[in-house]
Amino acid sequence: MGFTLDIRTQVVFGESRFQELATLARDLGFSRTLLVSDPGMQSTGYPDQAVAMLSAAGIAAHAFHDFSPNPDTEMVEAGRIAAAAHGIDSLVALGGGSSLDCAKGINFVLTNGGSIRDYWGFGKAARPMLPMIAIPTTAGTGSEAQSYALISDAATHAKMACGDPKAAFRAAILDPLLARSQPREVTATAGYDAISHAVESYVTTRRTPASNVFAREAWQLLAANFARVLRDPCDLEARGAMLLGAHYAGVAIENSMLGATHACANPLTAHYGTTHGVAIAALLPHVVRWNWTAAESLYGELAGADLAGRLAELAAAAGLPSRLRDLGVPDEALPSLAEEAATQWTGRFNPRPFGAAAALEIYQSAY
Amino acid sequence: MGFTLDIRTQVVFGESRFQELATLARDLGFSRTLLVSDPGMQSTGYPDQAVAMLSAAGIAAHAFHDFSPNPDTEMVEAGRIAAAAHGIDSLVALGGGSSLDCAKGINFVLTNGGSIRDYWGFGKAARPMLPMIAIPTTAGTGSEAQSYALISDAATHAKMACGDPKAAFRAAILDPLLARSQPREVTATAGYDAISHAVESYVTTRRTPASNVFAREAWQLLAANFARVLRDPCDLEARGAMLLGAHYAGVAIENSMLGATHACANPLTAHYGTTHGVAIAALLPHVVRWNWTAAESLYGELAGADLAGRLAELAAAAGLPSRLRDLGVPDEALPSLAEEAATQWTGRFNPRPFGAAAALEIYQSAY
Repeated sequence: MGFTLDIRTQVVFGESRFQELATLARDLGFSRTLLVSDPGMQSTGYPDQAVAMLSAAGIAAHAFHDFSPNPDTEMVEAGRIAAAAHGIDSLVALGGGSSLDCAKGINFVLTNGGSIRDYWGFGKAARPMLPMIAIPTTAGTGSEAQSYALISDAATHAKMACGDPKAAFRAAILDPLLARSQPREVTATAGYDAISHAVESYVTTRRTPASNVFAREAWQLLAANFARVLRDPCDLEARGAMLLGAHYAGVAIENSMLGATHACANPLTAHYGTTHGVAIAALLPHVVRWNWTAAESLYGELAGADLAGRLAELAAAAGLPSRLRDLGVPDEALPSLAEEAATQWTGRFNPRPFGAAAALEIYQSAY
Repeated sequence: MGFTLDIRTQVVFGESRFQELATLARDLGFSRTLLVSDPGMQSTGYPDQAVAMLSAAGIAAHAFHDFSPNPDTEMVEAGRIAAAAHGIDSLVALGGGSSLDCAKGINFVLTNGGSIRDYWGFGKAARPMLPMIAIPTTAGTGSEAQSYALISDAATHAKMACGDPKAAFRAAILDPLLARSQPREVTATAGYDAISHAVESYVTTRRTPASNVFAREAWQLLAANFARVLRDPCDLEARGAMLLGAHYAGVAIENSMLGATHACANPLTAHYGTTHGVAIAALLPHVVRWNWTAAESLYGELAGADLAGRLAELAAAAGLPSRLRDLGVPDEALPSLAEEAATQWTGRFNPRPFGAAAALEIYQSAY
């Protein structure tokens, strides 16, 4: 079986490596940069610190904060206008997955024109894009390892995945000190999401000898440190392991895609506003049981005979709800949610063939 | 602990991926290229095939074969002259580690001037270097994953390691079909060398959470497929696993360095012309025993309680000599060889502090 592995993002990992931002930016040739950082980050002081470090190194930095946790087409356009006004040659994204995705979205429309809708899909940016540095502060999406931005359509609310190899970050600073800024709830839901990325990407039909390596390592780092970081939010070793695990899981997804858990979770978020990681936690153990016959030996490599049990334990340790019925989803909505789950792109790569009947079975088992 | 991981080489892995050379070269912007391929490769027909594929795609390709298994300063200079005459904008290296190292050497002097001696060490190339594609046909050095070229000084015979981030290959095609061209002896010695890269890099004082991942995966691929590929040279799955394992071990070295085995092996090659992989095979199990107290838990992660025994078995399966006395090294030479081993750069990163007394102990145990 053939595969291609193209890792485009340099990893700069360790305590206080955030302090190297300006050096890294200078090495990459930044002179006027847009700092994209969600408004919730401002109270941490990190965005101001980033601007100060960049300015001291002679790099003009303009902050952009006008976007919400699910950046949409209009917020991306506002970012493009701010970026164009300052004639930027680079971007720095500081925060959770939404900050990273928003920076990618701004980069698409600033360099290639049109609306972010034009980049829905993969490889639609014809012209070069600006170099970017990511500083993820949550251990979750692994967006810093991926060439896709998730942007919502402000009109239709559709989530658009816009990807291009040129949208990859040049470098990612993974500094456990910054990850301490995550609220406990984010640590729990984003962390569980990262766990699901490792588990799902390990068994997809697109898995490669390279994605395997990253997914397995991600699982080991995340499973060993998730409860630990929830018990002690200032345990920097555990914070670092979660950041690195989420990053490796992001590399794995980039090379192998996801599966039925994400396909089933997305409609819950769309219709009931369920937090992504909460939906994932309620579903993942059931998807693992449902997939078992198709993926037994691979699942076994991760956690022996009872991966589903281990995943339920991890969710319980984080206080995440284990039943769909507790998420405010009415019983009678399951069939239509299942129809919608069957249309999700990520379900195509599930190890056991997945469709509406499968989704209904999974929802009912999780209910 | 902090670390930086910068993977610069895209991996294109799989049977018949060699056929994608011209597409890949075009994507990277090649228009006039130097094909660097050791003379032994010509009988395989692959160099001619590469030139034909490139030419058909409108890329002018000029072959350079005038170098030996240990490329030296004069051969690199001859390559530079050939490259300059054709006004190349890129290089393709096809063959074993010597072809890959020679291409890197030519690139240094062509783009940055002077002699390859000027680049001994790391990071001495101020100007940009030309993009290169590697097509390794042996599973051994993992040179395609590294930014160092090993070039001999034609006058002093010193082996110079010349490294620069810009000397990394943009892409590596790992095609198991081409690896069938390795003679059995090369499969054995180069393969064992790759095994030692995995084992040594896994325990160095410079190991990182990233080098670990690659070293461990390399060990698993190599240890499981070494005897298999020796039994059946046309087993393409095993050939592929060896190529990928050697590549991953190369990534691990790039991020963690090597240890006492390489420090002890180099003087044997310098004074007795011992094939590198043969010297490594006679030494590695003894170095593992000597290091045991310092690296027990790490070695245990690779192979339980008896890694040294497993390594001796692998050497025996390949028919490699297990005793130093059988390599024509006289007993009385050991002390002076040990003095020389102690000066080797790679010994500095051994998990147990290493010097002349240590080297003598290892040589005597291996004798």
